[in-house]
This record gives sequence, structure tokens and C-alpha cells, in this order.
Amino acid sequence: MDTITPPDGVSRIEHHACFGGWQDVWQHRSPLLGCDMRFGLYLPPQLEKGPCPIVYWLSGLTCSEQNFITKAGAQRVAAELGLVVVVPDTSPRGEGVADDENYDLGQGAGFYVNATEAPWDTHYRMYDYVVAELPALVEKALPFDGRRSVMGHSMGGHGALVVALRNPDRYACASAFAPIVAPSEVPWGRKALTAYLGSNEAHWAAYDACKLVAARAREGRPPLAEILIDQGEDDDFLGVSLTPERFEAECAAAGQPLTLRRQPGYDHSYYFIASFLPEHLAWHAERLGS
Amino acid sequence: MDTITPPDGVSRIEHHACFGGWQDVWQHRSPLLGCDMRFGLYLPPQLEKGPCPIVYWLSGLTCSEQNFITKAGAQRVAAELGLVVVVPDTSPRGEGVADDENYDLGQGAGFYVNATEAPWDTHYRMYDYVVAELPALVEKALPFDGRRSVMGHSMGGHGALVVALRNPDRYACASAFAPIVAPSEVPWGRKALTAYLGSNEAHWAAYDACKLVAARAREGRPPLAEILIDQGEDDDFLGVSLTPERFEAECAAAGQPLTLRRQPGYDHSYYFIASFLPEHLAWHAERLGS
Repeated sequence: MDTITPPDGVSRIEHHACFGGWQDVWQHRSPLLGCDMRFGLYLPPQLEKGPCPIVYWLSGLTCSEQNFITKAGAQRVAAELGLVVVVPDTSPRGEGVADDENYDLGQGAGFYVNATEAPWDTHYRMYDYVVAELPALVEKALPFDGRRSVMGHSMGGHGALVVALRNPDRYACASAFAPIVAPSEVPWGRKALTAYLGSNEAHWAAYDACKLVAARAREGRPPLAEILIDQGEDDDFLGVSLTPERFEAECAAAGQPLTLRRQPGYDHSYYFIASFLPEHLAWHAERLGS
Repeated sequence: MDTITPPDGVSRIEHHACFGGWQDVWQHRSPLLGCDMRFGLYLPPQLEKGPCPIVYWLSGLTCSEQNFITKAGAQRVAAELGLVVVVPDTSPRGEGVADDENYDLGQGAGFYVNATEAPWDTHYRMYDYVVAELPALVEKALPFDGRRSVMGHSMGGHGALVVALRNPDRYACASAFAPIVAPSEVPWGRKALTAYLGSNEAHWAAYDACKLVAARAREGRPPLAEILIDQGEDDDFLGVSLTPERFEAECAAAGQPLTLRRQPGYDHSYYFIASFLPEHLAWHAERLGS
């Protein structure tokens, strides 16, 4: 079962047998972010036989790499389907990294953007980290044949939609749980985008899924093949920072295929994520050819 | 989906839709323990149609009711099999409840005994709590037809074996993950039993699974139908406080049917529990007739 060891300069700080594979946590120095970063890595048993597709999971506000790997129950399904699951942290961390006393800005709240405003611009480049630096590290360390996809929750659902819409050739598919789809318009998004990118809202469009869908259509670029979103109807943030109807309208106007499922009774928690994650992973596996 | 509300005097402090049922946390005043107690309660969708069997899960050192309900992935399987899962805390809690600075004694480390020694004897009666007070509360609040079983991990595996061996008519079956089977002989057990029960080791026998198996045989009482244990071979506590070979020997000598599975590569964590919990729950469901 023990086939993958981290490359030089990367340390394996957790290593747990799990459903016939391994749940690891690796730590590396990120030149891009200027700090040490940790990420979760599920290595399914099928990896012994050859390359497996990689699903990138982007977490929500306050999360580290731990929340998803301990609470979502992904490993059982990933072991069945033969999927690697990579779970980055949600921001740069550590002494010397700018922070804020509130949960929705600074450490734990990187919003998957490349910050341009002080004091954030020295470390906060989570967009480039999740799209380029981290994949380059992981995909060199594992047997890999180019098949990757992305999913996420809340702030991480925003991240998943943004990176997929901006890099359609990199990701076979994208799905999200309770994503922030219109960050330019809602409290969580406006606060973070103002801090990280400045008050000129024109600079926010590259990190706004609604605007990206509209821009693709306006510029004559093809839509993504399909997007899957689950949204709990008893989510406390629904109608505040979560506005799935806005994304539905933009997708309809732009001809972007979207499956938006509203789940009665479900809230914003990992109990919601765990309940529908098996369907999301199966949906990804089908599109990844796993 | 919303069919069960707590009885008077019990408050529902968490309520999350999960796999078509509900993951609740209820809080009540325990007259037995003299403090407020919380427990996790998974209510599967089948409960709408009538009684479902109840599986009691007993957690290990340092755990509250949260660890199992957030990390084990039980809800998916319980929803498939139609099982209620009740998860008590591991000790009395709160101001005025005796505690110790170490993780393996006091709050979070009740060891499922009725303490007789000061200062523990005023609140620490977790044996009676898990066998009698908590079931009386839960089983009156839900549609229930008398089918119950018990399982647990580490200190809670000890608890599960002890309560099943002492109450074979109450529990349809018992299983355990990495249980402390001979607490009278190992560091975790000797420390706790000395503190809670005093230094006369004769008083420890009622809380020692190895001694209980031997006593049943010696007294001509029938063995339990079967016991299932999983033990990770890379568990750091194996050979220290975990001595499955001792239980295997006592069961063999006593004619107690036992399935002990040694799992290569697995450690003491919830990744280990999650990996084999589906098989344990299916094994319980079969014996509970669910």
C-alpha cells in the first residue's frame, strides 16, 4: 500500500491507512506564498497500478486542510472510484503573514485570489497556488496522466467555479456545494475583494463566477460542458452571501449548462457536504474517465 | 423528515439534515451524574415508518460526543441500514466536576465505571449512565422496540465489551475498535481504575473484559453469541495499553466466540475507525434484524 513518498523538500506530516489507501498531509515551502503550506492528499489503492485522476477540493472560510479530510467521508468513495483527492489550505499562514481579527479576512480566508493591495499582496496569491504551484508539485510526485477536476464548498465553491471558468482546458469538470457565486455583490465577497484587490470593482471580475460566465458568452468562448451545484435550503447564508439564483440566471442567459439542486432541510455544514459528496465524486469520476 | 423532538427538559442544541435523516445533539440534565450532558443522536429516515434498532457508540479518551459524529462517517451507513446511533460523552463535565490535568483521567476519560473513590465518586458514574440513564431517556423519546447493541473505540471499546459482558440480555451484540481489553494490566487502565475504584484490584474485575469473560465461564454462564474486534497493526498503543492477544487467549479458554481482525497499516485514528465502521454497522444490523 505504501507507494508514494514526498519529493525532496516536502515532508509527510500525517500518514494514515484509510479504506485501503492512505490519507496523508504533506508540508512544503511555497516560494509563491512565502510560507510553509500544508495540504491533504488521499492516495487511493488503485494508484499502485498506475495514474489516477486528481480531484482538487477547495475549502471554505476558517478551514485548514484538516476539515475536509476529517469530516467529509471522501476517502471511502475515492477508494471505490480510484480518485486522488488534494486538499489545500485556504490561505498562507504563519508569523509574518498578514492577518485580520475577523474570520472572513486574512488567514483562513484567502478567497482564491492573487492580492494586489497591501498588506495582502506579499503572501496572498492563492489563485496561482491552487491553479499552478500546488498542482505542479503534486502531479510531479504522483503517477499522473493529466486528468484533473475541481470542487469546493462556500468560499471554496467560489474558488472552484472561478478556476474552472478561467481554465477550462485544465479541469475536466467543476462542481460546488453552496458556493459564493457573485462575490462582487454579497457581504463576504465585497469585503474580501475590496481588501485584496482594492475598491475598483473592475478588478474583481476575474474572481466572480457570475461575471466570468457572462464574459465567456460575450467574448464568444464556449461554455463549460456542465456545472453541478448543490445548495441546502436551510443554509443560514442563503440569500445573504449565497445567491444561487444569480448564477442560475447568468448561466441561462449565457447558455452555460448548469445543474442546480436545492436540497430541502440541509444547512451549510459538513453534514450537508458529506451527504452529497458521493454523488459529486461519482459525477467527477464519470467525466474524468475513472 | 422532522419527526422526533426531544422530551421536556431536553434541549436540541444541534440539528443537521444528513443522508436523508438527522444528526442531532441533545443536552439534558443528568440527575445521576449531577451535571448537564450532551449526546449525539443520528435519526435515520426509516424512523418515520416505525422503530429502528439503536446502536450505542462509546468513544475513546479525550473525546466528547462530537468526535464520532463528525469524523466516523456513520450516518451514510446508518441511513442505509435503518439504525439509530447514540453517542454519549465520555465523562461528566463542567465546573464543580472533578478533573485532572492529564488527558487520561477525569473529564474526557470516565472509563465507563461507577467511581467509588473521592473526588470522583460524586459525579463519575458513566457505567450506570450508558447502561441505564441515557437509554431510558432516548428509548422513551423515540419509537423503540427493544433492539439495541453497543460498540466503541479504545477506552470506549473497553466500555462496549464491559457493558455487553455484564448485560448480555440488554445488547444484541457488541463490537470494538482497538479496545482496552485488560485494563487491570495496562497503563491507561491501571491509572484510571486506581483513581476511580481504589487500589484493591478485586474491585476492578467488574470493569475488565478479560476478567469478565473468564468469570462468565467459571460461573457456568453462557458466552455472548459473538464478539467482533478490529485492531490496527500500526497502532502506537498496541502492545502498551492495547493487548488483543490477552483477550484472544481468555476467549479461547472460556469458549467465548471472537472474531479478532488485525488490520495491517492501520493506526489508532478515526481514519481507521471510518475504514471498518461500515462492516461493523452491517454486522450489527444483521444481528439486530435491521
